Amino acid sequence: MIRAKVVGAGGYGGVGITELLLGHPEAEPTCLVDVNDVGRRMSDLYPHLAGFCDTEISAPDSSVAQESYDVVFFATPDGVGMKHARGELEKGARVIDYSGDFRFNTVEAYRDYATRLGREAEHGAPDLLGDTVYGLAELHRDRLGESTRLVGNPGCFAVSCILGLAPAVAGGLVDPESIICDCKTGVSGAGKKAAAAFHYPARYDNMNAYRLAGHQHVCEIEHELGRLAGGEVRVTFTAQVVPACRGIMSCLYATLASGMDADGVLAAYRDFHAENPFVRVFDRNATVGSIHVRGTNYCNLVVDVDARTRRLRVVSYIDNLVKGQAGNALQNMNLLFGLPETAGLDRPSQYP
Amino acid sequence: MIRAKVVGAGGYGGVGITELLLGHPEAEPTCLVDVNDVGRRMSDLYPHLAGFCDTEISAPDSSVAQESYDVVFFATPDGVGMKHARGELEKGARVIDYSGDFRFNTVEAYRDYATRLGREAEHGAPDLLGDTVYGLAELHRDRLGESTRLVGNPGCFAVSCILGLAPAVAGGLVDPESIICDCKTGVSGAGKKAAAAFHYPARYDNMNAYRLAGHQHVCEIEHELGRLAGGEVRVTFTAQVVPACRGIMSCLYATLASGMDADGVLAAYRDFHAENPFVRVFDRNATVGSIHVRGTNYCNLVVDVDARTRRLRVVSYIDNLVKGQAGNALQNMNLLFGLPETAGLDRPSQYP
Amino acid sequence: MIRAKVVGAGGYGGVGITELLLGHPEAEPTCLVDVNDVGRRMSDLYPHLAGFCDTEISAPDSSVAQESYDVVFFATPDGVGMKHARGELEKGARVIDYSGDFRFNTVEAYRDYATRLGREAEHGAPDLLGDTVYGLAELHRDRLGESTRLVGNPGCFAVSCILGLAPAVAGGLVDPESIICDCKTGVSGAGKKAAAAFHYPARYDNMNAYRLAGHQHVCEIEHELGRLAGGEVRVTFTAQVVPACRGIMSCLYATLASGMDADGVLAAYRDFHAENPFVRVFDRNATVGSIHVRGTNYCNLVVDVDARTRRLRVVSYIDNLVKGQAGNALQNMNLLFGLPETAGLDRPSQYP
Amino acid sequence: MIRAKVVGAGGYGGVGITELLLGHPEAEPTCLVDVNDVGRRMSDLYPHLAGFCDTEISAPDSSVAQESYDVVFFATPDGVGMKHARGELEKGARVIDYSGDFRFNTVEAYRDYATRLGREAEHGAPDLLGDTVYGLAELHRDRLGESTRLVGNPGCFAVSCILGLAPAVAGGLVDPESIICDCKTGVSGAGKKAAAAFHYPARYDNMNAYRLAGHQHVCEIEHELGRLAGGEVRVTFTAQVVPACRGIMSCLYATLASGMDADGVLAAYRDFHAENPFVRVFDRNATVGSIHVRGTNYCNLVVDVDARTRRLRVVSYIDNLVKGQAGNALQNMNLLFGLPETAGLDRPSQYP
Repeated sequence: MIRAKVVGAGGYGGVGITELLLGHPEAEPTCLVDVNDVGRRMSDLYPHLAGFCDTEISAPDSSVAQESYDVVFFATPDGVGMKHARGELEKGARVIDYSGDFRFNTVEAYRDYATRLGREAEHGAPDLLGDTVYGLAELHRDRLGESTRLVGNPGCFAVSCILGLAPAVAGGLVDPESIICDCKTGVSGAGKKAAAAFHYPARYDNMNAYRLAGHQHVCEIEHELGRLAGGEVRVTFTAQVVPACRGIMSCLYATLASGMDADGVLAAYRDFHAENPFVRVFDRNATVGSIHVRGTNYCNLVVDVDARTRRLRVVSYIDNLVKGQAGNALQNMNLLFGLPETAGLDRPSQYP
Repeated sequence: MIRAKVVGAGGYGGVGITELLLGHPEAEPTCLVDVNDVGRRMSDLYPHLAGFCDTEISAPDSSVAQESYDVVFFATPDGVGMKHARGELEKGARVIDYSGDFRFNTVEAYRDYATRLGREAEHGAPDLLGDTVYGLAELHRDRLGESTRLVGNPGCFAVSCILGLAPAVAGGLVDPESIICDCKTGVSGAGKKAAAAFHYPARYDNMNAYRLAGHQHVCEIEHELGRLAGGEVRVTFTAQVVPACRGIMSCLYATLASGMDADGVLAAYRDFHAENPFVRVFDRNATVGSIHVRGTNYCNLVVDVDARTRRLRVVSYIDNLVKGQAGNALQNMNLLFGLPETAGLDRPSQYP
Repeated sequence: MIRAKVVGAGGYGGVGITELLLGHPEAEPTCLVDVNDVGRRMSDLYPHLAGFCDTEISAPDSSVAQESYDVVFFATPDGVGMKHARGELEKGARVIDYSGDFRFNTVEAYRDYATRLGREAEHGAPDLLGDTVYGLAELHRDRLGESTRLVGNPGCFAVSCILGLAPAVAGGLVDPESIICDCKTGVSGAGKKAAAAFHYPARYDNMNAYRLAGHQHVCEIEHELGRLAGGEVRVTFTAQVVPACRGIMSCLYATLASGMDADGVLAAYRDFHAENPFVRVFDRNATVGSIHVRGTNYCNLVVDVDARTRRLRVVSYIDNLVKGQAGNALQNMNLLFGLPETAGLDRPSQYP
Repeated sequence: MIRAKVVGAGGYGGVGITELLLGHPEAEPTCLVDVNDVGRRMSDLYPHLAGFCDTEISAPDSSVAQESYDVVFFATPDGVGMKHARGELEKGARVIDYSGDFRFNTVEAYRDYATRLGREAEHGAPDLLGDTVYGLAELHRDRLGESTRLVGNPGCFAVSCILGLAPAVAGGLVDPESIICDCKTGVSGAGKKAAAAFHYPARYDNMNAYRLAGHQHVCEIEHELGRLAGGEVRVTFTAQVVPACRGIMSCLYATLASGMDADGVLAAYRDFHAENPFVRVFDRNATVGSIHVRGTNYCNLVVDVDARTRRLRVVSYIDNLVKGQAGNALQNMNLLFGLPETAGLDRPSQYP
């Protein structure tokens, strides 16, 4: 069994990976760490886990947390992983970090990200950046193998946008200067901490755009698309929240660069994602919604060409907490340990 | 008192105008007509109106429905108004129609609309088209006066998009070829009739884009913006539904045509809408959501420039059933009868 | 105009009475007081009030708050009203308090309440208790007149239970020892303050009972029903929260004391509430839900007899924020100033 | 592998058992039958099953549906199972029926049920009634073994009430004449078919009681509790619907028959359910909600004594579609095939 440690176990990212590890045939959530709720059982925080995971939450500096594990998930905000990854790597663990700490390979790229976010611009472990891999298997599967020790799990919006735009950008189908990402998320994307904006009465029949001045996920979208385009890419990105719990729906727009029609574009998308077990490509007539990926690691892409305006339009659906977070992290773990990519993730969800 | 007849009283558009008329100082819902529920009281269909409106629903051919009224609201689907408007006009009524029947002034423009919608292309009352006015006061207030007899009330998405784009297009601030309208609506936009897609369990944690092949509201958006631009305009338009009851949030994008910065654009918007009592303009830092216009006739516009990509971005919020439908219709009625534009509409809603 | 001061203006109880006063023909929210958000405009806290109420929030000790007003609403938690009511009364104001501070006429009754709640048992202004009136017009209308200076506005659950049980208890229709109140509320009943239990993702598909050990509203239910029964009454009361914003649905059970059938009981209820403009009585076949009182001051009662078990069953629906709080407070204000009881409250709400 | 046929595969009960069978280590949904959607793939109806279950829906009289299977689930309304069970039994299948057809062992008990429901009172296969078992393992585990061929799966409300009351009734802790069941369900309990009452805008902020004149689940509650009490039991039962998708919360009340205190009652409950893997017993201080059983086969019971009124109060939580339907059916299947009772059901759900 792969012995996993989850840091930040008490948050939605932590409980998500815990649930998935409990259902994984080759791994288990051996150690749960958090700075809050130390000494309480995971099933006290999350009663749905009673009988499945009654493990106590350990403090980061507790002896049980200091032991060595096969894999460590940092389900933590920016800044935590960069402080503690080295220690885990030295103890032989593989590290999968949920934050922006290890999504970039250079101090310059990190500085750009941190600056936009208003964080300290200097990375806390710059020597590790050369070895980290951006953990999106659909683009970097060849670098996510048994020799990989450190992975930066992507942001939830970024997953939906990159998977939905990569085929077009990589294939030169669109003008990379024309990209607009209009992204809506369910409220769970804001995490577990209660706040006025996510108080049920303030949210139940309400939708709004937020952080118009700049969302941190833009950096990695531009970085990955720029890599595929072979040059700088700048996108317009609008984050919005709607009164759902789970789900991201991203509408992605770009001007077509060639005379390709809808069928051609659809074929290019199907070709690009042919080997990606968690990406499904649909045509414009499909009746697909976020509920059809809810609870799963799938990304559903509806690919369309607006012939009147010669624009590509892709609607990308994921579950923000699964393919947008814990599920994608588990997919990375599978690759790092030479397991089938879909292990522990090949189950249908429940409907409705 | 202005005596109003409401045709299609049993639907959401009908109950909406009925509620507003009940609170209007100068008008009343005298006659309620529908093809369904004839003989039942309005308060049987809508128990929240018990004691306020216990009027019986009349059949269209009943004697009470054949009387003359001061104003007739056709809260009906396409095709009804064009059959019956002439009769009402001849009886001296003013007519405000909710459908696409009277939103266009020429048979050609109507044909384009009807064709896209898959309807019979020939208009049923072509001689009336010359006299109808597109009922958006913010653009056509000068034509919505006491001499106006026939009004085509706009589509809900169209209201949100046109109010949000008109200042930019009229002022030449943007390239009219670059416009993208990404529009989300609450479920009440689909009307009162139960359907699988709007069944609570299928909808409660679900969002999806729909009718990608073309939404009928695009015609009027392009028509009105084209008029302001002085030339043909084609927009990319994506309709989406989210698990809310009321509200539209439209994200509107266009490439800036000049070097104007965010402050300049904001000033242009404030100037354009200065005399429009139901439009509020906010800057990018405002915390505004659809719940803040819920139940009211307001359109809240958040105006932003994405400096990195030189794009205008406007987030337009309305209540689809008020400014997007019945409230806007009442605003039109006020203008047609020489009343203050805000009569019956100048009340705050309830929060939360 | 009646000049009103609202203390605790920033909470749901405060914004509720402010909205209602804005629509009242004879009163206005002249002064808004809170300990938080001092100096901000009410419309900054509640953007839906922009243009309707841009009044600044004043500190309790500010000069504007020290002026005299015709009526003061204490939309505040337990303990505030008892400290400050005397000062307001001495300045000539009438006082309507939302908390438990003035719901009881004796120090003994208050002590019982405070003890169950775990609060200091001694009342802070015991000499005022003799003059306060329990502000439920349906039971105490004769004491809520122009000579009344001090009113204790009832708890939201209590309103729903007392209105639904009073006819049966007063008429001796049921065994008062057999009463069970099973009460469900929407989340707005918990107030404006964000908390883990009311975070959207924790609440959206969740229902639960809470405070099984004792809810503070039980005291006033027992007190009022005991008065009607002419003896002590003890009820079993279960508070529950469901994923709605507004609304209370209370199922009320008691064993029938006589051979009266459903028709007889229904007649007794209709008779009891005949002069109460905000109470509507329905039979068991009515299709009534909380949405039909949403946004209004109505209490809808469905009255039924379970013939097989000889039990009375009443389902009582109110909007917790209107008849359960601010609307009922305004109804009290109307009575205290000799206005029609329904002034400012006689409007239908919006559906859906 | 156990080869299962699901009749009524297209409804919520059908998709529920299909999902569970897909995750079961020893069974599979081999044949899917429905009268609607014949020829479409299950994953066309339920896109979340794409890649997991692309089986075509077969007509009841198709050759594939006529083959013999190891187990047949009738996820169908009353009247279907009684027509077709015999044929399946003769082909050697075990039959688990979701409706009331096989919940009773005598024609008299069935007649009472059918009469209350307004159905034809004569059972269509009376000779089978002697052999059927009421499929609630917690009460009838000893009769749900490998020799059992026919099971009547209980009603969802009934599961929640019987599990919550059985310890008290069986132990003589309460007066069986005093039982009240106040039950709230999420909307999925109404099934997949769209209807006005479950249209999203009509339901989203609405709660209501329904079918006050009598709910069909009462029969089996009274029947099972009567068996435990050793005499006739009549309960007052109120069905309510709240704006959630999944979940039942039943508040159960009864007068205590002895001087037993809360601790004693709690101990009796823990003892009664000690061997039931899917029942968890909590004290009154537990923070438990329907979301904690969502997606699982668990029943969470909060057991309380209201000392002031000497009443037992139990709050019983289940997922209406799992322990209230498909999960309980699978639990029965496990027992009939000698498998571990929890096979295919021992997974945590997802939160939030």
